[in-house]
Amino acid sequence: MQPTPEAYQAVQALVDVLDLETIDDDLFRGRPSPNDRGRAFGGTVAAQALVAAARSVDEGFWVHSMHSYFLLPGDPSAPIVYDVDRIRDGRSFLTRRVAARQHGRPIYYQTLNFHRHEEGYDHQDAMPEVVPPEKGLDIRTLMAQQIDPDGPATTEWDALDVRAVGNSLMGLEPDPRRPAQQRSWMRIAAPLPDDPLLHVAAFTWASDLSLLSASLAAHTLEMDKVQMASLDHSIWFHRPFKVDQWWLYDQESPSAQGGRGLSLGRVFTHDGVLAATVAQEGIIRPPRHKD
Amino acid sequence: MQPTPEAYQAVQALVDVLDLETIDDDLFRGRPSPNDRGRAFGGTVAAQALVAAARSVDEGFWVHSMHSYFLLPGDPSAPIVYDVDRIRDGRSFLTRRVAARQHGRPIYYQTLNFHRHEEGYDHQDAMPEVVPPEKGLDIRTLMAQQIDPDGPATTEWDALDVRAVGNSLMGLEPDPRRPAQQRSWMRIAAPLPDDPLLHVAAFTWASDLSLLSASLAAHTLEMDKVQMASLDHSIWFHRPFKVDQWWLYDQESPSAQGGRGLSLGRVFTHDGVLAATVAQEGIIRPPRHKD
Repeated sequence: MQPTPEAYQAVQALVDVLDLETIDDDLFRGRPSPNDRGRAFGGTVAAQALVAAARSVDEGFWVHSMHSYFLLPGDPSAPIVYDVDRIRDGRSFLTRRVAARQHGRPIYYQTLNFHRHEEGYDHQDAMPEVVPPEKGLDIRTLMAQQIDPDGPATTEWDALDVRAVGNSLMGLEPDPRRPAQQRSWMRIAAPLPDDPLLHVAAFTWASDLSLLSASLAAHTLEMDKVQMASLDHSIWFHRPFKVDQWWLYDQESPSAQGGRGLSLGRVFTHDGVLAATVAQEGIIRPPRHKD
Repeated sequence: MQPTPEAYQAVQALVDVLDLETIDDDLFRGRPSPNDRGRAFGGTVAAQALVAAARSVDEGFWVHSMHSYFLLPGDPSAPIVYDVDRIRDGRSFLTRRVAARQHGRPIYYQTLNFHRHEEGYDHQDAMPEVVPPEKGLDIRTLMAQQIDPDGPATTEWDALDVRAVGNSLMGLEPDPRRPAQQRSWMRIAAPLPDDPLLHVAAFTWASDLSLLSASLAAHTLEMDKVQMASLDHSIWFHRPFKVDQWWLYDQESPSAQGGRGLSLGRVFTHDGVLAATVAQEGIIRPPRHKD
């Protein structure tokens, strides 16, 4: 199936957002990515910060992990400035810390580690058995059914193809040992240029979509009624992959308690290669919670 | 069974190490914890940093997550200085960043989030079925068999009771979907004072022991021949628990590749309450690797 003109346009907008303006050495500015959330999308901030850090790193090193905290809601109508601190330059490993700031205040901190290629032990979890993407349910159809007949409210979904495979409440065999599970096929909705950093950045951007809602798969399908906000975001990049080809986002939430939920995600390529592991904790407040 | 005099002594030494000296507001010094690794034990650095951050936080807030990177090997014979940066003071959440330094250089950075108590959705993974601690194999016996007849080389183990339940190579049913698993019962080896922060800190300390080796459960039992070093360390604290009573450390490694292994740990109390989730990536270099 050919991507729609809307998909091409949304993916081009994503590529533009992931290309930062250099202000000075190790200081960058990311263009705004307006949306209707009332705050900057966390995945955009995380991905722009990763691009900023990667620009401070010599060839031969590759990002293998990042950990981050969201501090304040970002202003979606203003650019974000990324200030890169070279906190370690080792022989095999480099560490960078990026402060994202807006209107004079830090809104997000990200720390990343880069590794020079080496060989070693190799193993990975096996991909769970799921229906192929073609048999998944298009997220637009699902959201129209469950949330809003007009489809997804936020514009991020335009650059993604998402096919829901199911969750613990609907479509997946419930597992009493792991009560909150959720699986989707995803891909960037139109071809991306063959730049490995762009694929890593676009994946980082996409990894913030849907993950937190795995926590709700033990509780409710009415996700729009729950107040949700990301608190942290971590990714371990295991093996390179093409983010514009189908990948399975296998999510589970080991725990929710006290207004928070933790979700873990494993990312498998269509061939079953484990490409990344993602972790995110967020606020998940039931509908009638008075703050 | 009564703790041995050696256990009482080792646990008292741990309590002392987790009690920091205040140098100035938000600036602390932790006493050295000499060992025979040739570098400071990462769990000690992580736990001391957590205590430093917690001292900057008002009553009513409780640590719910921490993310950190190890930058340089610490000098086990010198004190470590912890400098706390109050990067966010919100109404519901506080964020702190701690720089650990020695000999004028940062050796470790930790970021932590604190949350004011609230109610919300509640679920958790179920505890796997395992033999009780009394039927586990004492880690001292196991290490004497596998590594060194004189028992554990590092002194950290003296303050811990560890009973190995098994791993994918020995004692656990191999699971082709998750090829690297490892489970142990653990507890601090003598009673701790009833101070919740001390229990959190002692758990943080203990959580760095054995986790990385879960990556090897798909490859070798000769763990002493493999070069291992922690790169990062994250913990999500779900529910309070007593670290001097038995808890199950259920570990798995979703992936190893390129000289690194990622391990995830779930921590269950003896009653099956999910108390914490831990994540750590480390260097795991096979024996004959030339650096």
